[in-house]
Amino acid sequence: MEKVNTTERLASLRRLMKEHHVDVYMVPSEDSHQSEYIAPCDGRREFISGFSGSAGYAVITHEKAALATDGRYFNQAEKQLDGNWELLKQGLQDVPTIQEWTVDQVQGGAVVGVDPSVVTAADARKLADKIKKKGGEYKAVSENLVDLVWGKQRPARPSEDVQIQPVEFAGKSFEDKLEDLRKELGKKKSLGFVVSMLDEIAWLYNLRGNDIPYNPVFFSYAVVTPSDATLYIDDSKLPQDVKQHLAGKVTIKPYDSVFDDVAALSAKSFETNGQTETKQKFLTSTRASWALNKALGGEDRVNEVRSPIGDAKAIKNEVELEGMRQCHIRDGAALTEYFAWLEDQLLTKGATLDEVDGADKLESIRATKDHFKGLSFDTISSTGVNAAVIHYKPEKGACSVIDPKAIYLCDSGAQYQDGTTDTTRTLHFGEPTEIERTAYTLVLKGNIALERVRFPKGTTGFALDTVARQFLWAEGLDYRHGTGHGVGSFLNVHEGPIGIGTRVQYSEVSLSVGNVISDEPGYYEDGKFGIRVENMIMVKEVETKHKFGDKPYLGFERVTMTPHCRNLVDQSLLTDDEKKFINEYHTEVFEKTSKFFEEDSLTMAWLKRETAPY
Amino acid sequence: MEKVNTTERLASLRRLMKEHHVDVYMVPSEDSHQSEYIAPCDGRREFISGFSGSAGYAVITHEKAALATDGRYFNQAEKQLDGNWELLKQGLQDVPTIQEWTVDQVQGGAVVGVDPSVVTAADARKLADKIKKKGGEYKAVSENLVDLVWGKQRPARPSEDVQIQPVEFAGKSFEDKLEDLRKELGKKKSLGFVVSMLDEIAWLYNLRGNDIPYNPVFFSYAVVTPSDATLYIDDSKLPQDVKQHLAGKVTIKPYDSVFDDVAALSAKSFETNGQTETKQKFLTSTRASWALNKALGGEDRVNEVRSPIGDAKAIKNEVELEGMRQCHIRDGAALTEYFAWLEDQLLTKGATLDEVDGADKLESIRATKDHFKGLSFDTISSTGVNAAVIHYKPEKGACSVIDPKAIYLCDSGAQYQDGTTDTTRTLHFGEPTEIERTAYTLVLKGNIALERVRFPKGTTGFALDTVARQFLWAEGLDYRHGTGHGVGSFLNVHEGPIGIGTRVQYSEVSLSVGNVISDEPGYYEDGKFGIRVENMIMVKEVETKHKFGDKPYLGFERVTMTPHCRNLVDQSLLTDDEKKFINEYHTEVFEKTSKFFEEDSLTMAWLKRETAPY
Repeated sequence: MEKVNTTERLASLRRLMKEHHVDVYMVPSEDSHQSEYIAPCDGRREFISGFSGSAGYAVITHEKAALATDGRYFNQAEKQLDGNWELLKQGLQDVPTIQEWTVDQVQGGAVVGVDPSVVTAADARKLADKIKKKGGEYKAVSENLVDLVWGKQRPARPSEDVQIQPVEFAGKSFEDKLEDLRKELGKKKSLGFVVSMLDEIAWLYNLRGNDIPYNPVFFSYAVVTPSDATLYIDDSKLPQDVKQHLAGKVTIKPYDSVFDDVAALSAKSFETNGQTETKQKFLTSTRASWALNKALGGEDRVNEVRSPIGDAKAIKNEVELEGMRQCHIRDGAALTEYFAWLEDQLLTKGATLDEVDGADKLESIRATKDHFKGLSFDTISSTGVNAAVIHYKPEKGACSVIDPKAIYLCDSGAQYQDGTTDTTRTLHFGEPTEIERTAYTLVLKGNIALERVRFPKGTTGFALDTVARQFLWAEGLDYRHGTGHGVGSFLNVHEGPIGIGTRVQYSEVSLSVGNVISDEPGYYEDGKFGIRVENMIMVKEVETKHKFGDKPYLGFERVTMTPHCRNLVDQSLLTDDEKKFINEYHTEVFEKTSKFFEEDSLTMAWLKRETAPY
Repeated sequence: MEKVNTTERLASLRRLMKEHHVDVYMVPSEDSHQSEYIAPCDGRREFISGFSGSAGYAVITHEKAALATDGRYFNQAEKQLDGNWELLKQGLQDVPTIQEWTVDQVQGGAVVGVDPSVVTAADARKLADKIKKKGGEYKAVSENLVDLVWGKQRPARPSEDVQIQPVEFAGKSFEDKLEDLRKELGKKKSLGFVVSMLDEIAWLYNLRGNDIPYNPVFFSYAVVTPSDATLYIDDSKLPQDVKQHLAGKVTIKPYDSVFDDVAALSAKSFETNGQTETKQKFLTSTRASWALNKALGGEDRVNEVRSPIGDAKAIKNEVELEGMRQCHIRDGAALTEYFAWLEDQLLTKGATLDEVDGADKLESIRATKDHFKGLSFDTISSTGVNAAVIHYKPEKGACSVIDPKAIYLCDSGAQYQDGTTDTTRTLHFGEPTEIERTAYTLVLKGNIALERVRFPKGTTGFALDTVARQFLWAEGLDYRHGTGHGVGSFLNVHEGPIGIGTRVQYSEVSLSVGNVISDEPGYYEDGKFGIRVENMIMVKEVETKHKFGDKPYLGFERVTMTPHCRNLVDQSLLTDDEKKFINEYHTEVFEKTSKFFEEDSLTMAWLKRETAPY
């Protein structure tokens, strides 16, 4: 990680700011679709600041430049930012948020500019209000000024081929999905839905892409009205079979034409309906960009809602659920093979392996499995103190050698055509300390309690968060992250709207049969060790003796299929019920995955040992 | 419960509506302070409709009259409403809310009128928007039209003497409370706080009243600015010692003058500050009336916030906590004496007692206890099927005889000068059914789990709700009410902002050391039986082995001191830990309350039997 000299880039940007009559220019990390991961061409904040972490926000005035990031990246930012930059350590006391810092720069009618395609309409409104109160102006500058500075050095927008996700994996034709969506639009009395989230478009049309690392999506927009469905995408990305797949049902138009098109659609409907209070509007998701909102005519002509596609996507159909089960068996086998190999290398062969060697080996094993398409996120392969860094990413040359006498935490996942995986196991190949054993066992108890909990339909992930934390809390321990996130079906490994944790949105959406979600309590001691135990679980209806309120009672099916570490368990902290539950799980893991190791005696022996009953 | 002939009242009201150019007139249940209980003079909704339930909303047009209430009161409303009224059963499918019904009456410029002092500013804004969208107008009619119809028959506004709550019970002088409040106002850069909630005024000035049943409050408003504190109250309510108590610190002005006063204050500050965006504003609680908001100059000149007094009041000081402990010992002894007496009457004496006889006996025992001031709410004394009615209130002549072969549920509380109590015990004097035993034990397990839970500072009551429900959920059982509510200190038995349950506001306020809250899971089978187990608990810091995040870990101290029923427990469902916990509790109950029964061998024998170890 080197410092980047940004003097020239900033000088060019400031010249452009003057030309565009902008006093303050904001450069967020997001792309035009609010994607969690971005393509290199959208790395404007990294280009202008030199800081390459995943989360950050740059703001440039004619005199100053500030880069805001959170605690995960303070060290990295200090290493990468040159003298032109002020680092705003978000979350520390007395450090302003980047929005506050920006508002503070507004003096006597200053103009704050931003590319309206990379901020959400809601965020823009909030900031515009604050800037206006200080007497300034928040201005949409449609040309991205950083792109102009970047010029020919800017990577091209990815243009990978789009592929069909066949109904045999998707479980439902895109025509049926369109029909369902149109019913929803009818209920909401909406003119149509303008879709901006890439995973929603991929899901809706049963297509997958390769434009963004780890997320099998493609750059596009979509508009669905009662009569029409349009996909805005560069034609060059569509092989003949994809065109055939969509033919007659979905109109294809160029990616960039979406703004003019929705402006025309909205204007037309507005003329037809007149300016009555009850006029129908277009829907966008609350995460649609300010640019899209403006094109539709502004907030008065748009209903910003939780996406009906996001809601539908989160409820997997039977084919998707079965795909999840199947890919987790293959993925669990890959993890088991890796852990057996790693133990053998470290303890028997005395090999020196660094964290990246481990991650690479795991990927190479996964790559042999059916339907493997790639990883679903950067593998967290972390030894000892590194395991305490929740979003640790080992880099070749800068990472640690795996210490057989310390904890090893591995959080990893893959994309298979039949599903997406995400599993964490924490192992110890030597003699754990007492606190490591205690903390591991309390984390495991929380993981199990969540897998076993039953709850009436209507219960939210907010209400279940405590179930996973209760054992840690009783000992004065806790973890500073959520307990679970929704997972896509051969799509993004993080998907809303559901989750288990204390975010407000998790209190707004009930868990439903078909939800796929992670269950990942943890415990971290900075500079010492970290623990996380993560299984994927799926919401199912459960049989209960009673059924109060005549509504379904729900619970979870576990699909992750690799053993929990034995060496870290303090059996005295487990109840008989918990031991029985683990034994049943391990029996299932053995039954479902041992076939992979019939000719691999090393892994088979490891699996037998690890799944032996308590 | 008889039908009331409302024909004449409605005719008079409609004449007045014409005079005031109002087409639709709304009559909510609330008084000008959004009190949970109201004084008889504020029972306008009951007067105009004949319906006497605690929750309801009447709306009258020139042709129609509608009364909305919820499921608790459908039967009662059907009995009490005469032919002039349409009953809107709130919560049933396809039944409009009263607001929707009102908006539906708005045709071609219709005017909807309401007394702006009995609706909150926020509710008024919402409804005004909807009415405006239909082309109508929402109009504040400052004279209450129902009062004009009621005329001389309307009861006088209570004018009971106000009393001092001495620092020996309040734990803090009102001068100190004012200083704290002014610090809060300083932090919020506010011009002052206009206080409208009666319990907040009583708490702030260390005064108590007797104007509203069960709530020791008095009709008043208060305004606190950096330099002044004013109490708006009718002078006749203030004995000399109260005037002395306030003298030199608090200005006393007539109750009705608050509106003119705050209008003048706001106008003056507005002139001084000028019309800049950053000008300072007055604060009101989000539950302040539309009338008060209008007097202050409307929403642009007021910050509506969660009341800083409400927040401070919810955190009891050491004196208040000790008062809670002490009054619960006396109150627990009263309950124990009552339960022993009741069992003896029913089983040994073969007495015939109805539910009101029971409630009266309990009140007479409580009345012998030190510092007793009255009940804190209507005693729920319910036998058999009546126990399934969550807000059951037995009425002499219409209630049931207590059946010694059925469940008996008693939810009751009292006001003592040192604290407020609220306890539910569910008993059975005969042979419970299997489901009664199972359900009781699952409810008890939830009650205990909540009392035992530990959690880091920052955790909300929303996050803890599941702790009390988990055992019921596992068997497909649940209850349709919250798990806990805040309780005042010789004040209202229900007080915000904290609570344990799934209401949004409970996710917005963390539990803090000094909170006093109820823990009352239950289970109800309509037409069969009901169970509730309620203890009062107080948030305290707990010692944990570790202390992750360097923040306090919290738990609960239980203060309710009367045994849990033995006869309803299925011991096979209790863990050893739970039995130990109950045994420890029962030992404490015996130690703290047996002194009351040294000359009462009947109660002593009952207490010994009920607190014997498992």
